Amino acid sequence: MDVGFIGVGRMGRVMVANLARGGHRVRAWDSVPDAIAHVSKIEGVSVASSAADAFGGDAVISMLPNDDAMESVFLASDFLAKAPKSTIHINMATASVECADRLAEAHGKHGITYLSACVFGRPEMAAERNLNVLAAGSPAAVDRVQPLFDAMARKTWRVGDVPRQSNVAKIAGNLMVACMLEAMGEAAALARAYKMSPETVLETIVGSIFDVPVYRIYGGLIGRRQFEPAGFDLRLGLKDAKLALYAAEEVNLPLPFASVLRDNYLDALAHGDEKKDWSAISQVAMRRASLEK
Amino acid sequence: MDVGFIGVGRMGRVMVANLARGGHRVRAWDSVPDAIAHVSKIEGVSVASSAADAFGGDAVISMLPNDDAMESVFLASDFLAKAPKSTIHINMATASVECADRLAEAHGKHGITYLSACVFGRPEMAAERNLNVLAAGSPAAVDRVQPLFDAMARKTWRVGDVPRQSNVAKIAGNLMVACMLEAMGEAAALARAYKMSPETVLETIVGSIFDVPVYRIYGGLIGRRQFEPAGFDLRLGLKDAKLALYAAEEVNLPLPFASVLRDNYLDALAHGDEKKDWSAISQVAMRRASLEK
Amino acid sequence: MDVGFIGVGRMGRVMVANLARGGHRVRAWDSVPDAIAHVSKIEGVSVASSAADAFGGDAVISMLPNDDAMESVFLASDFLAKAPKSTIHINMATASVECADRLAEAHGKHGITYLSACVFGRPEMAAERNLNVLAAGSPAAVDRVQPLFDAMARKTWRVGDVPRQSNVAKIAGNLMVACMLEAMGEAAALARAYKMSPETVLETIVGSIFDVPVYRIYGGLIGRRQFEPAGFDLRLGLKDAKLALYAAEEVNLPLPFASVLRDNYLDALAHGDEKKDWSAISQVAMRRASLEK
Amino acid sequence: MDVGFIGVGRMGRVMVANLARGGHRVRAWDSVPDAIAHVSKIEGVSVASSAADAFGGDAVISMLPNDDAMESVFLASDFLAKAPKSTIHINMATASVECADRLAEAHGKHGITYLSACVFGRPEMAAERNLNVLAAGSPAAVDRVQPLFDAMARKTWRVGDVPRQSNVAKIAGNLMVACMLEAMGEAAALARAYKMSPETVLETIVGSIFDVPVYRIYGGLIGRRQFEPAGFDLRLGLKDAKLALYAAEEVNLPLPFASVLRDNYLDALAHGDEKKDWSAISQVAMRRASLEK
Repeated sequence: MDVGFIGVGRMGRVMVANLARGGHRVRAWDSVPDAIAHVSKIEGVSVASSAADAFGGDAVISMLPNDDAMESVFLASDFLAKAPKSTIHINMATASVECADRLAEAHGKHGITYLSACVFGRPEMAAERNLNVLAAGSPAAVDRVQPLFDAMARKTWRVGDVPRQSNVAKIAGNLMVACMLEAMGEAAALARAYKMSPETVLETIVGSIFDVPVYRIYGGLIGRRQFEPAGFDLRLGLKDAKLALYAAEEVNLPLPFASVLRDNYLDALAHGDEKKDWSAISQVAMRRASLEK
Repeated sequence: MDVGFIGVGRMGRVMVANLARGGHRVRAWDSVPDAIAHVSKIEGVSVASSAADAFGGDAVISMLPNDDAMESVFLASDFLAKAPKSTIHINMATASVECADRLAEAHGKHGITYLSACVFGRPEMAAERNLNVLAAGSPAAVDRVQPLFDAMARKTWRVGDVPRQSNVAKIAGNLMVACMLEAMGEAAALARAYKMSPETVLETIVGSIFDVPVYRIYGGLIGRRQFEPAGFDLRLGLKDAKLALYAAEEVNLPLPFASVLRDNYLDALAHGDEKKDWSAISQVAMRRASLEK
Repeated sequence: MDVGFIGVGRMGRVMVANLARGGHRVRAWDSVPDAIAHVSKIEGVSVASSAADAFGGDAVISMLPNDDAMESVFLASDFLAKAPKSTIHINMATASVECADRLAEAHGKHGITYLSACVFGRPEMAAERNLNVLAAGSPAAVDRVQPLFDAMARKTWRVGDVPRQSNVAKIAGNLMVACMLEAMGEAAALARAYKMSPETVLETIVGSIFDVPVYRIYGGLIGRRQFEPAGFDLRLGLKDAKLALYAAEEVNLPLPFASVLRDNYLDALAHGDEKKDWSAISQVAMRRASLEK
Repeated sequence: MDVGFIGVGRMGRVMVANLARGGHRVRAWDSVPDAIAHVSKIEGVSVASSAADAFGGDAVISMLPNDDAMESVFLASDFLAKAPKSTIHINMATASVECADRLAEAHGKHGITYLSACVFGRPEMAAERNLNVLAAGSPAAVDRVQPLFDAMARKTWRVGDVPRQSNVAKIAGNLMVACMLEAMGEAAALARAYKMSPETVLETIVGSIFDVPVYRIYGGLIGRRQFEPAGFDLRLGLKDAKLALYAAEEVNLPLPFASVLRDNYLDALAHGDEKKDWSAISQVAMRRASLEK
């Protein structure tokens, strides 16, 4: 297929490579020249001159860092008015539910099909075509772009007919991962307070009950207190917790664990952890019990 | 080996059967005649006339339901004074850290080796020799009783030289499981509030990130709201959360997730969930947002 | 003094009346004709034709309902550019810290003195000149407008030289009041759970320890469960809790009580309390224990 | 009246002095000789040789430090069996609801009238006959001992016919005071984070809205960070929060503010505040935002 790709940061570039490897023709764009440089030499990838230039062909995938970046590109005056109506826009980046709604509405107004297809997975997993795609929007449109997902992902999950439902599922999943981090932090603090090695205790619990990569990887980081370099930094963790709180607030839903997460990310930021991995939230429980040394 | 077994309830009886199958001679006792009946016909198992009668041979395993039951047997006057000093006592039931300390001290006073070896696993897993044993206490004594663990468990984890360290690891593990339940409850409530199927959303998240039995099983129960019959009832869930809070309180450690769990179990009990599975804690988030119907 | 007044809702109109009674000449404006009607007949009050028309004389006081209303008036293009530089602008409405900063910056750019002077007190107290004014900004400017405060308030508190410090103090004070409401709710629920009259128990505690109007009034409302008509509605309570959380987030400060308040306002809104007084947050604790009937 | 007094610590001794001043004959006892010395020279006070010796006359008042102390005296074998049935026992110390029930039951079994009459007030207030008494139990018995309350207190509040209802009211009141401390701590932290003086901000808020001694006194301590010497130490604060949580747990009532208080007292204890006043809980919010210096 002919596909545009807007936003080729750490995630986007490996997705582009997999699309090209899968035989798709990709026109990539990013506002950062360095990012473009990473993809320009891949066979089957051409460089677009602007976001508008990339928005064409069978489909365009966007992978921009946050709500503001997305809205400043796609909701800029005339952008969608001038975009081809036959191109399906698939946003695969994490965005707020509100942003998903605004984008869906704006595309609808111009007769452009908009899908939301957030992913679970980090760059390493994207590189191995090991992403999980949460597709939401018109089922017929999802059918048409399925070959693109197949080129990038281990599995596509259809979570609903309304784009924002992908965002809700993604936000809910990230919330569960963040809760896992805090839970491991509390378990590790309990271990340390009783003069045990948090690493051993987490290995035991994870090996016994939770023997799956996300627990093994983060359990290891928390057990060894190895929070740099950050795979996903703590400010992004806070952003995610806030996405959950905002989405829940819209529907009058209190989420007490998410409130604790927000408070604890702030605590970590106040203690200088802003460049650390979000799993450093686990150290908050230790600090409160004066166990951090 | 010759081994006594005190407490043959739902867990104890399958452990006894596996010990016998492994070639060990077991003398079992329980205060409940019905429980005894379950094990008396197993080949290699004889019935003891009292807890004291069962306390002998190479080792004795106890699997009593709670602190009070343990203390009323083992700390009763003269019980340990009259017990043979060559028998290693292995307590495999979940107990508070304080109870573990009291038992360790009392056994030490009478020169009897006391091990704590809590397990992760439910009766079905015990039946399949699929338990994980968290052994703590004298390493030499653990070495001696290792054949018993091998007859019952998938793996033995050595978590420390002091008995209570097994209890700490067990309490920490149960805390992590309970946090998983609440986290799934919050995710499910978010899904439902946005008119999505909690079952589908949890399946997607679990299948993508947390593809391990404990998540699949509980994710299914929560997704389908199937909380009866209870595998592990909600009052036991509250008891576990309190074990974590008490253990943490002793060492001046605040555990905000555990505090939320306690509050939410109480909320569930106040709404008539006392006979439901502890995973019914997941419904508290829904109820707070008036989504329970 | 000659003073403009922008925003003559329930609070603004009684403040205008007191200014006029104190001998000041007031030109009032509001976007709602009905609101204007309330003040147009007061002796000493004239009606301005627009916000720009009201912005003049010695000082102009604004009392608009929220951030958006303030920014849409004062940050509209050219508004401040055309405003007289000799008029001191005193914003007395509750606004976010960020809004205070944006307004202060915009006024500064045009050489107009901007003060923030939030108030504690409700319309009845304003009517009795019983407000407390929290003045922040240039001390010399506060000195000049002090006669205006004297005409409306029981006391002026100088809380700092930077306008937003008034907003911080106001937000902190409202947080303390909201915490009082939740605390009374938890106390009342405990009383009811033990078959006691929440009204009697709150009267006893308030009469013994907290014998001051804010406790007596809200203690009575909570004791009698009398939440309608709303003096200050629950959505405004949520807005206030969020002002505190946002202000704190900017400085990496977790506020666990404020997080509980937010969650409980959402719970109340989910149960249909949106037209009730914010003191209805007190019923959340009762509902969680199934005591609400 | 002829009255025994068991427990003449810091509070008990000033109560004894006021009883004597009011013309009552007091026979006082304490397990600590030093405590006895404080009251032995007061005119109208004689020293009893034991708790049993003090338990007689028209009434006996107990003011022991905690549940254990009370139960070890009054539930000791034969104590109540040998006590005179015509003496009304008035327990005025703070005890758990459970302890109140156990004592009421034991007294009832021996035909002795038992009242619970917890007080609000600290030693200085007791010295000025400025206590508030929360009387619960048989109304006729309360009538009979009213002269004793009148000699010690500013006011007697009748809160119910069942003794434990006094304990519930007392626990609820202390919870409200502790919530006030945490709320002031969060307000003070917000002030400091915005470079304002917590002392000034608290004075402003208290002077505007909460102008009553308990706020003025604690607001001053928190504003000035003056936590030593402790009027009521932080461990007692934790004990009180736990009394509330236990009482609520018995009736399946979650109290989220009380859970936060418990967590924050533990945090304070972990940071070396055990000899500080319980109002030092206010510093936890500051520490979490790295504002403590």
